[in-house]
Amino acid sequence: MSERIPHWLEKQAQLNPEQTALETPEGYKLTFNELRKKSRQMAQRLMDLGVKQGDHVAFLSGNHWTYPIFIHAISYVGAVVVLLNTRLTSSEISYQLQDAQVEHLFVGSRLEKLAEDSVAELNIPIQGIEQLNEITEEKYALKDSFMLNSVYTMMYTSGTTGNPKAVMHTYGNHWYSAVASSLNLGLHLSDKWLACLPLFHVGGFSILIKSVVYGMPVFLMDKFNVKDVQEAIFHKGVTHASVVTVMLQKLVEELKERSYPDSFRCMLLGGGPVPESLLHESAKKQIPVFQTYGMTETSSQIATLSPADAFKKLGSAGKALSLAELWIDADKGETGEIIVKGPMVSKGYYNRHNNEDRPLRTGDLGYEDEDGFLYVVDRVKDVIISGGENVYPAEIEGVLTGIPGIREAGVTGRKDAKWGEVPVAFLVAENQKLSDKEIINGMAGKLAKYKTPKEYYWVKELPRNASNKLLRRHLFSHLEEGDRS
Amino acid sequence: MSERIPHWLEKQAQLNPEQTALETPEGYKLTFNELRKKSRQMAQRLMDLGVKQGDHVAFLSGNHWTYPIFIHAISYVGAVVVLLNTRLTSSEISYQLQDAQVEHLFVGSRLEKLAEDSVAELNIPIQGIEQLNEITEEKYALKDSFMLNSVYTMMYTSGTTGNPKAVMHTYGNHWYSAVASSLNLGLHLSDKWLACLPLFHVGGFSILIKSVVYGMPVFLMDKFNVKDVQEAIFHKGVTHASVVTVMLQKLVEELKERSYPDSFRCMLLGGGPVPESLLHESAKKQIPVFQTYGMTETSSQIATLSPADAFKKLGSAGKALSLAELWIDADKGETGEIIVKGPMVSKGYYNRHNNEDRPLRTGDLGYEDEDGFLYVVDRVKDVIISGGENVYPAEIEGVLTGIPGIREAGVTGRKDAKWGEVPVAFLVAENQKLSDKEIINGMAGKLAKYKTPKEYYWVKELPRNASNKLLRRHLFSHLEEGDRS
Repeated sequence: MSERIPHWLEKQAQLNPEQTALETPEGYKLTFNELRKKSRQMAQRLMDLGVKQGDHVAFLSGNHWTYPIFIHAISYVGAVVVLLNTRLTSSEISYQLQDAQVEHLFVGSRLEKLAEDSVAELNIPIQGIEQLNEITEEKYALKDSFMLNSVYTMMYTSGTTGNPKAVMHTYGNHWYSAVASSLNLGLHLSDKWLACLPLFHVGGFSILIKSVVYGMPVFLMDKFNVKDVQEAIFHKGVTHASVVTVMLQKLVEELKERSYPDSFRCMLLGGGPVPESLLHESAKKQIPVFQTYGMTETSSQIATLSPADAFKKLGSAGKALSLAELWIDADKGETGEIIVKGPMVSKGYYNRHNNEDRPLRTGDLGYEDEDGFLYVVDRVKDVIISGGENVYPAEIEGVLTGIPGIREAGVTGRKDAKWGEVPVAFLVAENQKLSDKEIINGMAGKLAKYKTPKEYYWVKELPRNASNKLLRRHLFSHLEEGDRS
Repeated sequence: MSERIPHWLEKQAQLNPEQTALETPEGYKLTFNELRKKSRQMAQRLMDLGVKQGDHVAFLSGNHWTYPIFIHAISYVGAVVVLLNTRLTSSEISYQLQDAQVEHLFVGSRLEKLAEDSVAELNIPIQGIEQLNEITEEKYALKDSFMLNSVYTMMYTSGTTGNPKAVMHTYGNHWYSAVASSLNLGLHLSDKWLACLPLFHVGGFSILIKSVVYGMPVFLMDKFNVKDVQEAIFHKGVTHASVVTVMLQKLVEELKERSYPDSFRCMLLGGGPVPESLLHESAKKQIPVFQTYGMTETSSQIATLSPADAFKKLGSAGKALSLAELWIDADKGETGEIIVKGPMVSKGYYNRHNNEDRPLRTGDLGYEDEDGFLYVVDRVKDVIISGGENVYPAEIEGVLTGIPGIREAGVTGRKDAKWGEVPVAFLVAENQKLSDKEIINGMAGKLAKYKTPKEYYWVKELPRNASNKLLRRHLFSHLEEGDRS
């Protein structure tokens, strides 16, 4: 039997009614009491429009203050929300709407056209979010509690191979994830978390849940913007921010000789391997970067460096959080597939065969050092095997982006008669292209010979999916604009 | 299906091996790694001595550094520990050993005689704790995870009426209790919790669980002692202390004009109604007192004042913690029985008929103010009905102990031909007895006429049970040493 817990927003509005739940750079503010009222009111409107308990309701919206209201309204109805990525094409959205058996589609501003195209051949009603802001009378009974094992959200995995699949998250997955994070990072009365990642990804969404579980304000941005983030950290009392590598890079650059105020206690860094040079640069500036490891299936971070180890174990994603377990499918100290387990791990994919109690094979490669700290190496399927040696693209990319003049790097394998495969690199220049000699000098002493790319292609941009993940297997086909260096 | 979580000490020893887990005023210290090793070793010894998974193992010990080692050893074996109150008589212990179907009894120092007397007519082997400290080889597989719904501890309720009953606590009860408390009080890297309450009561025991769930040091005292507690707060980095009224009274007195360092952030006050005068005195000295409400059945606090409300709502036990629900069985604003629900609430009593999913009727009376803050009034069965009015002994006792010269007060009802019942008071003098007139002057304006005690008895001490709870229904029979005032 699963636990039933009080509705988290009801609870928080009761515990801390006047505490700020949400604020934006534009000065929009909501207390937990106001967030509760607005969410309950939107739930009434949703039910007016025919949404019932258990319905699958898709939401296509950018970051906006209506986002938390919508997702809490869904929980008051007891429906399941399918969070759509606004960067998808209409045919990709169309696939997800069908695959998730969606019955209602709600759309944020400036996305109406994309939504209409997506449902062109489907029988799914589209409604604008503004219709949900209308006041309606309180007619329907709303949920005042959840079962921890009830499904609440579905998010499609980025799907670098095959069709995307809907990861189902229960209330418990999100709740345990929030609690495990607080047991790692601590919890202060003054905490305020910046959300500049998309809320339709689990990294952004999880901040909304932390807010309501902790009673903590979220500082919500519609998108990442260096100036606004710095302003928020320096002058708006932001104590935590969740970012990905490219954001941290820009923040570090813009910071120059300044350092963040002591009140800023956590830069949570997710989204894949990080160039070591960036971590050193951040450490030099005393930025409290906590590297994390996680994915949609783990409801955000499942391993994170702890505050005590942040500067001691640069490059590590730390250890599995409280309640979570993580191990490597290899001999001690060796690199192998990362396996995870815990109450924040999704029970599976919607409409697929799932084996709930099995640990999750992540498809990521990593190893643990002698103190048990995790180092994520690469995706299993991106590994290049050259002359019998495993070559990890992420390692080479990390070295390449550490060379001044190289903004981005993607590495993949090319068939080779002698070695089986050899690594080749695709590069985006900071300003102007470097010569091969400059690149080779820049890498000096950092990579074994068999890891050194055999060819360099300069391109305008690297192929990425809607979640901004590098698609290494598309590097060659994306080359039309490329140029042999 | 309940969740399975990693063994909490395994996890913490992995996350923070070098963090202090335990320290004592005498300078004894253990890291989480050392606590893990010692607990695992003791688990091996327990199994050597025949303790198996599921066995009921009683532990009779005062506060000592072996206590946390023992209880963790039990969890490595997967046995159930029955925590015995060292203040009980041998016949009371004998009853509990039989009622809980105990198979092994382990005994701390200086309690051997009590233990032997308790098993005189039983067939239960007694073993001294020192036998468990012997090194043994690692022969047995130990638990590396728990099911949250497995029973871990049993503690007998104070039993002010009827036979005492064993409250069963699961791992989940303790875990959710620890987490709910951290969501209320926050969690800082520097937290260190003082345990001066007996560890065989849930108020003390819960500190040991918080320690291992948070990765936080416990500062363990064998018993409460004003000087040692002040020393710990002023000079040993203690940030939290769990106390009962009488302890707070002594600390406030001894504090005189000093105030605690800012690092001291929580004086958690439990164990029943508190005289308002003491709360005012504490507030004047800026002591961060958080009044709580809880009982063995709720695995310690289930409602607590939050830091933000600590000085605004003097006398209130706050609101139900995260995950918990609490309501009053009466009209809004009226006094009635307190009902609670939540994953920290025990599923029931050992070997009794239990109805797991029912909310718990606490037998305590309380009301909620207009902001939803709980005020605990009294025990249901101690209420005096006088001329049709409810009279709450605790209210009168609070007023009486606010009078200089009165150290303790107990109030109960006496049959009365005219009013049905009338309140009478039993008093313990600070130094010398006051006159009736002095008492009445001291109460002036604070109590309605029908609440004013009709008789005063001065006694040397009040009848209390082994848990130090006032036994109001024994006030008259305890009077042999009393003296009509």
